[in-house]
Amino acid sequence: MIIHNFINDYSEGCHPSILEALTKSNLEQQAGYGNDSYTQSTTETIRKKTGNPSVDIHLVTGGTLANLLVLGAILKPFESVIAADTGHINTHEAGAIEATGHKVESVPTRDGKLRISDIEPVLVKFPEFHTVKPRVVYISNSTEIGTIYTKQELAQLSNFCKANKLLLFLDGARLAMALTAHDNDVSLADISSLTDVFYIGGTKVGALLGEAIVIANEGLKKDFKYHMKQRGALMAKGRTLGIQFDQLLKDDLIFQLAQHANAMAIKISQAINDLGYTFLAQSSTNQVFPILPNSLIHQLQERYGFLIWKQVDDKHAAIRLITSWATPEEKVDQFIIDLRRFSKD
Amino acid sequence: MIIHNFINDYSEGCHPSILEALTKSNLEQQAGYGNDSYTQSTTETIRKKTGNPSVDIHLVTGGTLANLLVLGAILKPFESVIAADTGHINTHEAGAIEATGHKVESVPTRDGKLRISDIEPVLVKFPEFHTVKPRVVYISNSTEIGTIYTKQELAQLSNFCKANKLLLFLDGARLAMALTAHDNDVSLADISSLTDVFYIGGTKVGALLGEAIVIANEGLKKDFKYHMKQRGALMAKGRTLGIQFDQLLKDDLIFQLAQHANAMAIKISQAINDLGYTFLAQSSTNQVFPILPNSLIHQLQERYGFLIWKQVDDKHAAIRLITSWATPEEKVDQFIIDLRRFSKD
Amino acid sequence: MIIHNFINDYSEGCHPSILEALTKSNLEQQAGYGNDSYTQSTTETIRKKTGNPSVDIHLVTGGTLANLLVLGAILKPFESVIAADTGHINTHEAGAIEATGHKVESVPTRDGKLRISDIEPVLVKFPEFHTVKPRVVYISNSTEIGTIYTKQELAQLSNFCKANKLLLFLDGARLAMALTAHDNDVSLADISSLTDVFYIGGTKVGALLGEAIVIANEGLKKDFKYHMKQRGALMAKGRTLGIQFDQLLKDDLIFQLAQHANAMAIKISQAINDLGYTFLAQSSTNQVFPILPNSLIHQLQERYGFLIWKQVDDKHAAIRLITSWATPEEKVDQFIIDLRRFSKD
Amino acid sequence: MIIHNFINDYSEGCHPSILEALTKSNLEQQAGYGNDSYTQSTTETIRKKTGNPSVDIHLVTGGTLANLLVLGAILKPFESVIAADTGHINTHEAGAIEATGHKVESVPTRDGKLRISDIEPVLVKFPEFHTVKPRVVYISNSTEIGTIYTKQELAQLSNFCKANKLLLFLDGARLAMALTAHDNDVSLADISSLTDVFYIGGTKVGALLGEAIVIANEGLKKDFKYHMKQRGALMAKGRTLGIQFDQLLKDDLIFQLAQHANAMAIKISQAINDLGYTFLAQSSTNQVFPILPNSLIHQLQERYGFLIWKQVDDKHAAIRLITSWATPEEKVDQFIIDLRRFSKD
Repeated sequence: MIIHNFINDYSEGCHPSILEALTKSNLEQQAGYGNDSYTQSTTETIRKKTGNPSVDIHLVTGGTLANLLVLGAILKPFESVIAADTGHINTHEAGAIEATGHKVESVPTRDGKLRISDIEPVLVKFPEFHTVKPRVVYISNSTEIGTIYTKQELAQLSNFCKANKLLLFLDGARLAMALTAHDNDVSLADISSLTDVFYIGGTKVGALLGEAIVIANEGLKKDFKYHMKQRGALMAKGRTLGIQFDQLLKDDLIFQLAQHANAMAIKISQAINDLGYTFLAQSSTNQVFPILPNSLIHQLQERYGFLIWKQVDDKHAAIRLITSWATPEEKVDQFIIDLRRFSKD
Repeated sequence: MIIHNFINDYSEGCHPSILEALTKSNLEQQAGYGNDSYTQSTTETIRKKTGNPSVDIHLVTGGTLANLLVLGAILKPFESVIAADTGHINTHEAGAIEATGHKVESVPTRDGKLRISDIEPVLVKFPEFHTVKPRVVYISNSTEIGTIYTKQELAQLSNFCKANKLLLFLDGARLAMALTAHDNDVSLADISSLTDVFYIGGTKVGALLGEAIVIANEGLKKDFKYHMKQRGALMAKGRTLGIQFDQLLKDDLIFQLAQHANAMAIKISQAINDLGYTFLAQSSTNQVFPILPNSLIHQLQERYGFLIWKQVDDKHAAIRLITSWATPEEKVDQFIIDLRRFSKD
Repeated sequence: MIIHNFINDYSEGCHPSILEALTKSNLEQQAGYGNDSYTQSTTETIRKKTGNPSVDIHLVTGGTLANLLVLGAILKPFESVIAADTGHINTHEAGAIEATGHKVESVPTRDGKLRISDIEPVLVKFPEFHTVKPRVVYISNSTEIGTIYTKQELAQLSNFCKANKLLLFLDGARLAMALTAHDNDVSLADISSLTDVFYIGGTKVGALLGEAIVIANEGLKKDFKYHMKQRGALMAKGRTLGIQFDQLLKDDLIFQLAQHANAMAIKISQAINDLGYTFLAQSSTNQVFPILPNSLIHQLQERYGFLIWKQVDDKHAAIRLITSWATPEEKVDQFIIDLRRFSKD
Repeated sequence: MIIHNFINDYSEGCHPSILEALTKSNLEQQAGYGNDSYTQSTTETIRKKTGNPSVDIHLVTGGTLANLLVLGAILKPFESVIAADTGHINTHEAGAIEATGHKVESVPTRDGKLRISDIEPVLVKFPEFHTVKPRVVYISNSTEIGTIYTKQELAQLSNFCKANKLLLFLDGARLAMALTAHDNDVSLADISSLTDVFYIGGTKVGALLGEAIVIANEGLKKDFKYHMKQRGALMAKGRTLGIQFDQLLKDDLIFQLAQHANAMAIKISQAINDLGYTFLAQSSTNQVFPILPNSLIHQLQERYGFLIWKQVDDKHAAIRLITSWATPEEKVDQFIIDLRRFSKD
């Protein structure tokens, strides 16, 4: 019998205070399409937290929609986006970006993070008009394998992009986890000043659904709502998203929730480390990729839900364990007890 | 001071029982991407209500997304969709259907309803491969101007479509209002058996957001989730939609809510009729389009929110009044009192 | 037995001097992708004839490709193009423009020509971001039914477009016929100064294939070859197009050929007129749409090829007769003799 | 002074017999859009040569257009095409395939040729509907770096594709060179029976322009002309392409021309080999990629045109030399003399 799932960070509903806020505001009449007072309040909060009073904020329902919307709006038909080959847009969006007409130029990385040396070769092209023209660099923070960018790394990328007339777009589906990792030195204001556009994920950090797109680059702001409407991303009841983000950002709830998710993951990975196992990648956020013996994996599978990420050799595989804002510490403790027990077998 | 808005049917949140259901289920761990138990329960309920145990159900966040998703999935690149020129896909979706690559062939109608005689001329084309190939007929029920289809009208359309190898797609953003109108003779089972694909709107009938796409045509079912994922329409927390529809469909809540909306509209339109004013179209659902003197409109605007739909002549305009599941009857009564009072002025 | 086809203006090959030029230059090595000396020479000639030394010229293989290429390059995703409902892009390109993602907003006209009063209502839209945003006005000269624009009409359209931030795009598949019509008062320089982009058709005026796109608007020039490459419109052997246009434009050959086509059509339409028949539209170019009795049409069909354009009533239809640069005058004379003879029957 | 260009195989016009055929047929009236007698004759010839009387033939103007047309027609929105990373569709078409909405899944290869072991890892995907669905395998013969497939290799690919429900599409821009290489064991009939769709390039083998798409797979034939029209690929004067292919295929002219191109390349590569230089890839067709000292390259550049393909190390680069049907043997001889002379310096 499965006693807990570590399969993803969207298995539960939302933080109770969001349900309370939805309930409290429920019968208020609010304007549609993002013109409600809660979306406005969210906008003001984000402007304050980023230290940038002129960023534009748009709330949408999910990460893939945010990615295809932003890239579809930014790119001219012949322009491409550069991404790590592990990037969500390259692997897990069923070709959503290509469906907007654009090539994803993917490059292998050792840890899910893009560096200048990964991007430079992509810029070297056959003479003009035969190839696509790279225009956007897409990064995720935290990455799809749990790693995070340092402030220096982001600054270097940002400078490189500016020098090469590239735009920097940060997928922040798990941005709150990145910004609350124990080894993080980046702030929301840094993210905003170093990128052209990014989003703050809600779906994976305690909202029922929702991502907040933040546009700092002046040239990308115009007519964005037309793009939203055309992609089916403009919600009639924008309040449903506005109320949630208003609540998440108030008193930094989103960061508290992310911190809990990270803490639970660290607890697990330390226990695994103590048992002498290694990891596919060094994660300080809420995704852990330990490499375990197949036999141990089979035992764990009888009591816990998780993904087998990658067969490493005949006898070992990397699994993916994800914790969330809602992961009860006692389930983590139980998991560790079981892990130790099975390891001795 | 505005004492009530009749601007649309998505100004309020959701029916309180939905919030209760969300709260009750909140910490359950559920599978993602529509594999949760609530979406399954919704599926079973719709199969029962349509009398068709093999229809496929997919829940998405909004109507424009539903429309572009379905049409983008059904149509081959060179195929077109036929719609009334008042059809939502033709006017109010910022070119969402064309953005999926397909021509909307629009035809004028007298009441927002498509008839065979409207469609036939569109099928007469220049010799093959120079023109688009019509493949889908798109109708809305209730229509964008509040009218509804009779069972006979739907049956005729359905037969005509089958005879001409056309697919029939029904936009049901306000389907619950249509099926509960006093002069309706159509059931959900009829809708399901007479169309190839349709959807049941939730956003405008008491949900926070959500539309339930119902696919009856076997040939349209395969790989639909790929299309959803690619359009950003597949929610990680599918439960957020599943719980709402489960609640709305249980004990026919959705139809009770629609009935209230209709009743409030009828009350208003009868009062308007009693005062001797006429209407742009004969609506029996929750949208009313009275033609009023400009002076009266200005007086009403000071106390109520609504759209001015169309200037009819120098001195008169049609306005659009919309009621919803949440419209308090006392606001309607107050509106009628004010209307009578201002009319005497 | 069919003794001559008046079905279209592309039934024959090309003017013999083009074949001579192709033969003469055949073994020269020339640069690819439009960088050959003949394309350069064509560019210079067009710059001279338009009186605009900075227009950009791009040669492509056909009219539909030119249309989808130009509109796909100019329009942002949510922008639309306004066209007469008889416009080639609206009717005879199998949805090519929609396949680039853009709505064609078509309006009925009495003679295939767009006027300000046709465009104005399209600009009146529902509040922003719910609808497409009109950006380009598409006209054809000569139109699809043989009519032509006067200089005054073009100037009015041009001013209106500028005042309303619209771009004016002229489809010149039969531009040479328009500019050589007996009642024309427009020059190539006028076309260039009054539009943002247009093209000079070669396929229908004596080339094996080819249309010359002329871009005057500075803002539309950048990266156009990227668009061409991406659409498959950039020919490796650009010389094939360059040599033909070089020849057609040299000594105004293209206008002499168009003049012949027009003269043949006028001869036919005068004869028809003399017999007391009427026309669907008043054409002064190489397309004639007489309304004839069905019995006469059947007799003509035994000896001549042409399209039946439109059934007018039970006993009459409009047919389409097209003449070309290659139509032998003796075939026209024979047609007139037969027409008179059959009319007496 | 440049005395000869080895830059590409489309620097010259066309084989003189094509000009003669164009001239001879010039004033015949022929049906448009591929219904002319020459396109029909081409169709019959290809059916005979492939031994398949039911293949469909469509003539288009260029290779990129052929690729985007075929893949755009074959693939459903969420389906992808697998290609070598050197594949033309992946590198040199400005994102034309992605612009039709489809992901190109590229894999590195050692010689431009795809093998089963390259394809298999691409088929291993994350659980369904999160990723694209591979559907087509795209190969080029000869490849972009001059190599060719053996019959056994093609048969293995073909079987693998059938077993995995993949379609095999062969880009034959230089198919004639592949089939006439000294080490080739593949026939046109083999190509036709082992692939689902392929094309025979004309642009690079003596035509003014044109590629002949051959569809063997019954499921891919329907409505192909709609796709052509929509992409701007259906020529009004289809005769322009029909006459050329009729001439090229008659008496196997296309293969004689390819054989000459290959022979010239072999002569050059043998001379280079004799001088002790190595090659980037082992080509037996008309593209040669010798690795030469920079100093030698500079000397050659003063008298010959060619591309510098890739810097190999500080002192050496690979250059690309291409010969064609029109390359005069005396220029090749002169090149070899110069090469030997400069090598001694």
